[in-house]
Amino acid sequence: MYTEYLDLETDNGRRVLVWPVPYEGTVSFGSGTENGPAAILRASAEIETWNEATGLDLADYAHFRTLSPFHPPVAGPQAVYEAMREKLRQDPAFDPARDFLLTLGGEHSVALAPIAAYAEAYPDLVVLQIDAHADLRESFEGSPYSHACVMARVRELGLPLAQIGIRSLSRDESTTIHASGAHELLTLFAHDLPGPEEAAKRLREFVADRPLYLSFDADGLDPSVLPGTGTPEPGGLQLQWLNRFWTALGPALRLVGMDFCELAPQPAAGVVSESTAVQAINAVLLRTFAPTA
Amino acid sequence: MYTEYLDLETDNGRRVLVWPVPYEGTVSFGSGTENGPAAILRASAEIETWNEATGLDLADYAHFRTLSPFHPPVAGPQAVYEAMREKLRQDPAFDPARDFLLTLGGEHSVALAPIAAYAEAYPDLVVLQIDAHADLRESFEGSPYSHACVMARVRELGLPLAQIGIRSLSRDESTTIHASGAHELLTLFAHDLPGPEEAAKRLREFVADRPLYLSFDADGLDPSVLPGTGTPEPGGLQLQWLNRFWTALGPALRLVGMDFCELAPQPAAGVVSESTAVQAINAVLLRTFAPTA
Amino acid sequence: MYTEYLDLETDNGRRVLVWPVPYEGTVSFGSGTENGPAAILRASAEIETWNEATGLDLADYAHFRTLSPFHPPVAGPQAVYEAMREKLRQDPAFDPARDFLLTLGGEHSVALAPIAAYAEAYPDLVVLQIDAHADLRESFEGSPYSHACVMARVRELGLPLAQIGIRSLSRDESTTIHASGAHELLTLFAHDLPGPEEAAKRLREFVADRPLYLSFDADGLDPSVLPGTGTPEPGGLQLQWLNRFWTALGPALRLVGMDFCELAPQPAAGVVSESTAVQAINAVLLRTFAPTA
Amino acid sequence: MYTEYLDLETDNGRRVLVWPVPYEGTVSFGSGTENGPAAILRASAEIETWNEATGLDLADYAHFRTLSPFHPPVAGPQAVYEAMREKLRQDPAFDPARDFLLTLGGEHSVALAPIAAYAEAYPDLVVLQIDAHADLRESFEGSPYSHACVMARVRELGLPLAQIGIRSLSRDESTTIHASGAHELLTLFAHDLPGPEEAAKRLREFVADRPLYLSFDADGLDPSVLPGTGTPEPGGLQLQWLNRFWTALGPALRLVGMDFCELAPQPAAGVVSESTAVQAINAVLLRTFAPTA
Amino acid sequence: MYTEYLDLETDNGRRVLVWPVPYEGTVSFGSGTENGPAAILRASAEIETWNEATGLDLADYAHFRTLSPFHPPVAGPQAVYEAMREKLRQDPAFDPARDFLLTLGGEHSVALAPIAAYAEAYPDLVVLQIDAHADLRESFEGSPYSHACVMARVRELGLPLAQIGIRSLSRDESTTIHASGAHELLTLFAHDLPGPEEAAKRLREFVADRPLYLSFDADGLDPSVLPGTGTPEPGGLQLQWLNRFWTALGPALRLVGMDFCELAPQPAAGVVSESTAVQAINAVLLRTFAPTA
Amino acid sequence: MYTEYLDLETDNGRRVLVWPVPYEGTVSFGSGTENGPAAILRASAEIETWNEATGLDLADYAHFRTLSPFHPPVAGPQAVYEAMREKLRQDPAFDPARDFLLTLGGEHSVALAPIAAYAEAYPDLVVLQIDAHADLRESFEGSPYSHACVMARVRELGLPLAQIGIRSLSRDESTTIHASGAHELLTLFAHDLPGPEEAAKRLREFVADRPLYLSFDADGLDPSVLPGTGTPEPGGLQLQWLNRFWTALGPALRLVGMDFCELAPQPAAGVVSESTAVQAINAVLLRTFAPTA
Ligand SMILES: [Mn+2]
Ligand SMILES: [Mn+2]
Ligand SMILES: [Mn+2]
Ligand SMILES: [Mn+2]
Ligand SMILES: [Mn+2]
Ligand SMILES: [Mn+2]
Ligand SMILES: [Mn+2]
Ligand SMILES: [Mn+2]
Ligand SMILES: [Mn+2]
Ligand SMILES: [Mn+2]
Ligand SMILES: [Mn+2]
Ligand SMILES: [Mn+2]
Repeated sequence: MYTEYLDLETDNGRRVLVWPVPYEGTVSFGSGTENGPAAILRASAEIETWNEATGLDLADYAHFRTLSPFHPPVAGPQAVYEAMREKLRQDPAFDPARDFLLTLGGEHSVALAPIAAYAEAYPDLVVLQIDAHADLRESFEGSPYSHACVMARVRELGLPLAQIGIRSLSRDESTTIHASGAHELLTLFAHDLPGPEEAAKRLREFVADRPLYLSFDADGLDPSVLPGTGTPEPGGLQLQWLNRFWTALGPALRLVGMDFCELAPQPAAGVVSESTAVQAINAVLLRTFAPTA
Repeated sequence: MYTEYLDLETDNGRRVLVWPVPYEGTVSFGSGTENGPAAILRASAEIETWNEATGLDLADYAHFRTLSPFHPPVAGPQAVYEAMREKLRQDPAFDPARDFLLTLGGEHSVALAPIAAYAEAYPDLVVLQIDAHADLRESFEGSPYSHACVMARVRELGLPLAQIGIRSLSRDESTTIHASGAHELLTLFAHDLPGPEEAAKRLREFVADRPLYLSFDADGLDPSVLPGTGTPEPGGLQLQWLNRFWTALGPALRLVGMDFCELAPQPAAGVVSESTAVQAINAVLLRTFAPTA
Repeated sequence: MYTEYLDLETDNGRRVLVWPVPYEGTVSFGSGTENGPAAILRASAEIETWNEATGLDLADYAHFRTLSPFHPPVAGPQAVYEAMREKLRQDPAFDPARDFLLTLGGEHSVALAPIAAYAEAYPDLVVLQIDAHADLRESFEGSPYSHACVMARVRELGLPLAQIGIRSLSRDESTTIHASGAHELLTLFAHDLPGPEEAAKRLREFVADRPLYLSFDADGLDPSVLPGTGTPEPGGLQLQWLNRFWTALGPALRLVGMDFCELAPQPAAGVVSESTAVQAINAVLLRTFAPTA
Repeated sequence: MYTEYLDLETDNGRRVLVWPVPYEGTVSFGSGTENGPAAILRASAEIETWNEATGLDLADYAHFRTLSPFHPPVAGPQAVYEAMREKLRQDPAFDPARDFLLTLGGEHSVALAPIAAYAEAYPDLVVLQIDAHADLRESFEGSPYSHACVMARVRELGLPLAQIGIRSLSRDESTTIHASGAHELLTLFAHDLPGPEEAAKRLREFVADRPLYLSFDADGLDPSVLPGTGTPEPGGLQLQWLNRFWTALGPALRLVGMDFCELAPQPAAGVVSESTAVQAINAVLLRTFAPTA
Repeated sequence: MYTEYLDLETDNGRRVLVWPVPYEGTVSFGSGTENGPAAILRASAEIETWNEATGLDLADYAHFRTLSPFHPPVAGPQAVYEAMREKLRQDPAFDPARDFLLTLGGEHSVALAPIAAYAEAYPDLVVLQIDAHADLRESFEGSPYSHACVMARVRELGLPLAQIGIRSLSRDESTTIHASGAHELLTLFAHDLPGPEEAAKRLREFVADRPLYLSFDADGLDPSVLPGTGTPEPGGLQLQWLNRFWTALGPALRLVGMDFCELAPQPAAGVVSESTAVQAINAVLLRTFAPTA
Repeated sequence: MYTEYLDLETDNGRRVLVWPVPYEGTVSFGSGTENGPAAILRASAEIETWNEATGLDLADYAHFRTLSPFHPPVAGPQAVYEAMREKLRQDPAFDPARDFLLTLGGEHSVALAPIAAYAEAYPDLVVLQIDAHADLRESFEGSPYSHACVMARVRELGLPLAQIGIRSLSRDESTTIHASGAHELLTLFAHDLPGPEEAAKRLREFVADRPLYLSFDADGLDPSVLPGTGTPEPGGLQLQWLNRFWTALGPALRLVGMDFCELAPQPAAGVVSESTAVQAINAVLLRTFAPTA
């Protein structure tokens, strides 16, 4: 019975458009990402917007307008991509050059349409991917639009890509990463993750002053704080690392849009995963919209 | 840890090929049909093959060979159909003119490939559908290969269709049914279901001596005995009705293959649905392969 | 991600206001009624509005406007009642003399506020309760506003009460029933339930031409078709009985509002209960708004 | 938090000893019978003791004392049997010649110890089994003390056995049944179950005036009203049939003890099964202890 | 089937009264705290009392008497508080000046009654709260007795309050904390938590030699070790931190009573949360009752 | 629908026999270990074999042959042990002097049979146990073959035992440990766990050049990364510690076989536990079969 992100009654600060995209294609291992958007909306009402560590309140810097959920076609992930692309093009409420869109997946393949929309508005867009998986396969299980291929498609759009938290990939994906130029691909693997300040420094150098889009796959986080994903991988990012990372990135970064994907809520196991998801999203938004001391 | 249908160690009677097809497309309402095949294999080991009412034992009349599960592509239901078609064409173990194939879904769209295979072998094939839904839509949620369209596709193959248990359909599907000729479509609605003997008489007249394929959607059964389906509809068939119906059909019918689809097991709710499913399947097989007194 | 009752895009026929009231007080036995409204809204999108038995489509006779969900206070069931009363009084969208309100519980205590609102508009209102329980206790577990007392409170409003399906009650409630006058209380127990036509005849005589409010406790239905309630009682009403009952009641009855309460969806057990709930609600609405042949 | 059967504060009528035996041996199919006793105790607090159909209140005719739960050894079902036997022999609170013991399983193998205790006290004891399964195997999965063998062991004690509701058995068990003398074994199969009055007549003739023990396997009931068992079998007994059966048996029968086994509660699926279980148990107790009009 | 805290058969050391209070008011987000006490009793039987790190056995220093569970009224949290207060006043088994009471919630609001009872016996009582939330709101969702207000009520009793692990609060609560005097309120936020020895030093200075009551909200612990709470907040306390903290506090502290609240067990997700809860409780008890080397 | 460990199509490197033993004896606390093998097989198909940290691919160094699952008798844990022993003796596919067997439990008692088989082939075998529990009881709940006694039985075979991660034990087990000679028992408790390099040094000294068998109880791992076990104990091993430990052990160690037991998957809570289990197993196998740089 919660249909809005946060239950603010203000219109302070920047407007954030929230787009629920409850799409899950052919189910494989742990499933349930089609329930991700509803769980995030529900949990958002329970999370305090006040941030004691910074003395800032997200409610002072952003307000939210939740769009109608996207009803995906069943004809496969390419059809979903095309329908999302069309929807974003036709929706008078959304202008990528103006609006901050928070897309709530659904599987990670739903990130492609908003990235393509922003890339049209910002030809020099850089994408930052938080993920356990590289998602750089050419094709997977018969489709180049599988969630396991989404960043291969992003790179085909000509966009530089930074990846953080990667710890599960094929030998081919590893070869691709190591063969890529330092200006097109930056991968910070989980197994030798630098400190958050060093990571921030490397990302700032990679992005420079270009606009940034954040594609946040829930499984980038450690399963101890977010167990509810389809393919959990131990050894992931901690919220504390991310919070220090966002702080270290500082206000110079220009985040223009983001998605949060692959949350597969487990209602019989409580609400830890969706709570963590909202904490992770709100931390990004606070750092993006609040002036840093 | 059960990978075979039944755990017989005999090779009595007719060989039945069992094909698990754990496919579920874009998830909508109640989900879980991709777990149907495993649940049916598991339950089959628990159901007695002895039938006290008839004094017959299915183990005397059939033995089973379970094929490798089909791993569906993710590119959508049309791609799944085509891959299944190809698989059946290439599998040297399966000859539709010779073999009885029991396909275990998965969603109902997986019935189309085996029906097409049998239609090629038997040009005069008739299809019998047990279902709560008419599945006669031209297209649904963006695909003509959706489970809600499978019998529209069957009819496009030129096959006569008999339907039993229908109680959920659109106005358009109703119009289609009432506009169809008595030789192409026979629909026995659940709301005025005849007795099983009368129903058998009408089906025998419809089929005559042509070969028959049975497409059994689990939701044709009443949810009180099979609650585990994606779109349960009260007012469905009881097992007793079906058992009397198969008996009344008698040995004249030539069943050449069948599928059982749309079982969505609910592991946290026990094993009622898969137990009923196996009872329903075994009843068909016993009536098909055992000489009736 | 479904926030409206049915997903109609028409405004045919009568407008129905739908009010989700996800209230559950102190949890006792089987719980989860606070999730009832969301489950009903979700399921409503899956149920066909076409009714093959009558050749009528609910979508021709009604359209729906779903109100904001009620957020109950935590101060106890009396506070909830008062807040609901106040909300109904102040909501300019709702006029009991004009509007058909479909309240979705939540526990049965949430029926009291809409009944009181209609009683104010219609001093000669009669209440029809479908329930396994008599709900006639003076007080229960420390509160006269418990769900087990709701019909005692209704009778204190001076409203005649008809009950159908009752099969669980205390000795005191039994005494109350047998001591009540035939004009104030009509109880059709489940253990000697008359046929639907006879039941309809008795209700028509009881109601005469007065306006009627229907308070539908989900546990009135048999648990074989609606297992998801907090206190399931075997031996309840079947949907077929109810459908014949509504038909037999005929168009003379003036239903002015209704509630459907006590659905406790069990997401890990599938969607049978909410599907049945929507079927039961839609059957009432179709008989209420469609002209009968 | 419910540790007593019913929450009566009276000591009216006959004392019933209630013995929780939460034993489940090697888990096979649907599991969870070790949670049966707790679920029954919990549900018993929610079921009204007033019976509207008879105008009788169980609380006037019986009171309950719940014994400490039995903690089964892990050394296998024979060790469990022996430990239960020893416990019953040593417990000063229990005298089979005097006390009515209601044993709450656990799997059906736990019935053997109380039956043996009563057989010692009543050499002419007759056993009535309500069950979907014959439980007449000589040995099962490596043990003659498996739940599938419990009635074979009962017959080895020399006790006549009546069975009702049987619908799942092996060919060997069928042969055993048909080869048994009419005075040692009476089997009423579910597939041609007589009416309850005829069944009662046949049981009265079988038992004559001998003392009777009731071993009630939950799966004897139809899964539509009691889905929570390990091996549910469609086509079982309805509560209404049983209620009419108990009434028809009348007060002449001398029930000396009973068990209720094989309830496998499914907490994520609600409380239907345990509610039905308590209704079924209380109906037996009321007919046993209340003078019939 | 476990109704006692621990399954000791000794009466060594200090007697601890254990009071299960399975109360949950209006359900909001993750629910299930009404099942907390039963889960803790159950888990307590599985946790070893031997502590290898200290070479001490809790069973040498404490024994337990579990009181009847409290059956809360449904009239709201204020009525629950008053009924608990009355119960504690009237129970001859409990004397706050003499007895160590371990109250098992239920939601955190159930802590107020035992705190008030101890405050009456010890006018100089200090309260230590372990929690993710400040619980200092004046009123919440319509009641000043909500779990979100319990420490505001404690402070109204005039009791000094120390808080550890706080990481979720409103701006108003933050203002309250920063405006409070150092002698009335000590808050150790999770975002800059000192080491356990430093924290112990600060608490010892705050408490001095006054008697202490511990109110332990399960969500104070990190969700990675205790996911089963209604509003899990990442970034919480680790058991190791707490163990070192209790050690550092040393034997000087006079703990007179405690509660453990807000455990919402998730039976379908295993038993991690209740196991952690018992470990956390036993660690407190061992440090309280055992002489430290 | 996954019946093989990993889905490799190669036969590179060493052959590993995988034996699913889905045995759980009398169920006590958290249950479900009988579902462990199927969950591990299923998860193995989802875990990448490529290891980015080492630049090695397990698929280059091992291939897998999964044996038929063991169907345990129900006569108790001793009967299970004997049947497993017999099976291993008779299976022509398995020669302990030649084959690496990966046994997948089931409860920990299933480790005894493979250990005994290897001990026969390697009289100087040393056993390494990873576990939260010492498993050194003489007898538990009536059986010396309980999972809580498995390492007492191993020691009776005369095998030296090293234990890592122990944090739950009885006083008697503690006494046993401290009384044992340094050459027969090495216990690294969790509460003062050395660094992985120091631990590896101590184990190398204990084992010297003797053959080693690894018995891996899933609860040795921390519940934050593997919550799905029957008796989770906070404060366990992290995967990172283990990975560094295996690296530090180096190629000198001769691992001849292993088991992984006590995984109790929680399907309603996602797939974290089985994913972690496969990661833990594959890490052992990679270090065992790949030449280290
Ligand atoms: Mn990922
Ligand atoms: Mn991804
Ligand atoms: Mn269907
Ligand atoms: Mn269908
Ligand atoms: Mn009711
Ligand atoms: Mn009611
Ligand atoms: Mn039985
Ligand atoms: Mn049975
Ligand atoms: Mn809290
Ligand atoms: Mn709190
Ligand atoms: Mn172990
Ligand atoms: Mn262990």
